[in-house]
Amino acid sequence: MGQIPETANKGLENIVACTTEVSTLFDVTLVFRGYTIEDLAQNCGFEEVIRLLWDGDLPSGERLAACKKELNDHLALPSDFLPVLQAIAKTEAHSMAKLRTAVSYYGCLDPAAEDLSPDAVKAKATRLTAAIGPIVAAISRYEQGLAPIAPTLDRSLAWNFLNMIRGKPPTAEEEKLFDTALVLHADHELNASTFTARVVASSMSDYYSAITAALGSLKGPLHGGANEHVMIMLRQIGSYEKVDAFIDDAIKHGKKVMGIGHRVYKHGDPRARILREMSLQICQRAGLEDFHKMLVRIQEQMEAKKGLMPNVDFYSGLVYTALGLRPRDFTPIFAVSRISGWSAQVLEQNANNRIYRPRGFYTGPKDRKVRR
Amino acid sequence: MGQIPETANKGLENIVACTTEVSTLFDVTLVFRGYTIEDLAQNCGFEEVIRLLWDGDLPSGERLAACKKELNDHLALPSDFLPVLQAIAKTEAHSMAKLRTAVSYYGCLDPAAEDLSPDAVKAKATRLTAAIGPIVAAISRYEQGLAPIAPTLDRSLAWNFLNMIRGKPPTAEEEKLFDTALVLHADHELNASTFTARVVASSMSDYYSAITAALGSLKGPLHGGANEHVMIMLRQIGSYEKVDAFIDDAIKHGKKVMGIGHRVYKHGDPRARILREMSLQICQRAGLEDFHKMLVRIQEQMEAKKGLMPNVDFYSGLVYTALGLRPRDFTPIFAVSRISGWSAQVLEQNANNRIYRPRGFYTGPKDRKVRR
Repeated sequence: MGQIPETANKGLENIVACTTEVSTLFDVTLVFRGYTIEDLAQNCGFEEVIRLLWDGDLPSGERLAACKKELNDHLALPSDFLPVLQAIAKTEAHSMAKLRTAVSYYGCLDPAAEDLSPDAVKAKATRLTAAIGPIVAAISRYEQGLAPIAPTLDRSLAWNFLNMIRGKPPTAEEEKLFDTALVLHADHELNASTFTARVVASSMSDYYSAITAALGSLKGPLHGGANEHVMIMLRQIGSYEKVDAFIDDAIKHGKKVMGIGHRVYKHGDPRARILREMSLQICQRAGLEDFHKMLVRIQEQMEAKKGLMPNVDFYSGLVYTALGLRPRDFTPIFAVSRISGWSAQVLEQNANNRIYRPRGFYTGPKDRKVRR
Repeated sequence: MGQIPETANKGLENIVACTTEVSTLFDVTLVFRGYTIEDLAQNCGFEEVIRLLWDGDLPSGERLAACKKELNDHLALPSDFLPVLQAIAKTEAHSMAKLRTAVSYYGCLDPAAEDLSPDAVKAKATRLTAAIGPIVAAISRYEQGLAPIAPTLDRSLAWNFLNMIRGKPPTAEEEKLFDTALVLHADHELNASTFTARVVASSMSDYYSAITAALGSLKGPLHGGANEHVMIMLRQIGSYEKVDAFIDDAIKHGKKVMGIGHRVYKHGDPRARILREMSLQICQRAGLEDFHKMLVRIQEQMEAKKGLMPNVDFYSGLVYTALGLRPRDFTPIFAVSRISGWSAQVLEQNANNRIYRPRGFYTGPKDRKVRR
């Protein structure tokens, strides 16, 4: 170990942990399987992007219809799953702790859980990617003393999620906006939760272990929890007029401004640009225009004064608020999308595996002896 | 990304992911906080080693008594936990999938789950390190249609675990052997499950998310599942006389011999040496002497013919078999010990955190465009 510098790459910054064909941050944008996120957000639905991530190509025609049907076949939660799901929902835990537990238990009910063949893992990914939205919706409704809502099988995942969690069908505009949000969050190279999923898969553990672990990682406020905190920040600031003073104070005291900055994108997160543009109209309709203006102002100020740009979390919380969703469901919603990328990267890890086993550089005491 | 070589360190081999004061592979042995594993195995009980790992020093006198009491206070499982635990145990899932789910749910019931202060995390670690043995024992008994057994509060964790899972108090020799096995497995620098726990903790997620994820990682046959497979291998070989032919065949066809080899130890795993020595007598008493002789022969052959030495998994499965434990409980038993190390390293990660966010080197297609 003597030859390895102690300071080497904290947080594994700039260390290549694996090769990947799934997604990358290329030049100034995010790319899934060779397509830019702008192109996909404009032209594809979430179901298409799921299969693009898993299979490498966009499905079309009959193939796309079959994929959609496969997903929709698993929208209904198994009846033996619901009593435990209800017990989990009724605890006082963090919404992501509940989702972590629910998905882990969902895996316990899958007789094929231990089959690591690519086809079996894809079947499990299909099952859980379809079911995770209904699971999040059911937990949310149980928490509010409401019964889960049955899926509508000829509708999209986005439509079903909004209907099942709110108990109110989305408008076409709402469905499109939420579907785009799902596309934007679907994958993002080796973020911490995806890396977690790959590390767990690398011991040849099963798909559900990898996804359960990823949910635990996404739960952290430095990762999936950020958009909820953007909304908290907006409410703390209170009004448009107070934005500049808040930013000056934050900069002066070195406080973190939520949703700003990204370790990889130095010229801004393309997903934030798309969400900013898409969210204006719905914010106006929902009476949240002031919050939107505040975000734009924070963005301008942070760019001018610190050279920092917003990331995807900066506008997504406001979009979800405008869609009538509760802040405690924001991080679970992130998972409803990101499970597609986790699944793609677990498949990739399985196909070309080596266990992740880095080193810790020891800085503790030496040569101690137990005295008895 | 262009400047980063594509081949860089698959599995993060030899990459330093963090500094640590908890444990290291130093010269030819394993060291916890400056003490060799040989010294600790000979002179300390598991409870002492737990606090050594967490606090940096061995407790003694009144302090040790207080630590033991703190642990034993959480041996009894909460009554509101048991119905869901029973539902989990009654599924057909892998024993580690059940334990993963049970621990995740246990976290849902902890009102302090989201408190990341060092004292709160240590309190949670105490709680779960005490409870995980009883959880494993209860799952094992529910699977066999038996009721869980209540803890005996003036006994060690090792004594209680053997009593609670077998329904039969251990002899002094059995208790000592199992306690030593717990000490030997307590920590091991950045193995895949510990690294998983640190990665999850690094997004500032909570203790239970980190441990749940680590359980999912340990579940993999390349990690915690190996000792169960050593026993399967022994039964496949069948008898001492057939060992040499089995080894020659494995070498000829490049097949993996379970429990042999370690990426870091090149001169043999000190834990395997200790277990080999300690296990002989109990194997004789349990009528498993032939299996012990087979393992020694496999070890000799692999060293002579491939220069490879046994790791900790090589003898531990046989020790657990001699103690009357079921193969499906072996990996959960690994977790009963390793949770001490996971907890120590989560505490350390929390104290000096940076989110793990390595890079993926993109090898996929470029410049594709959605055609509509």
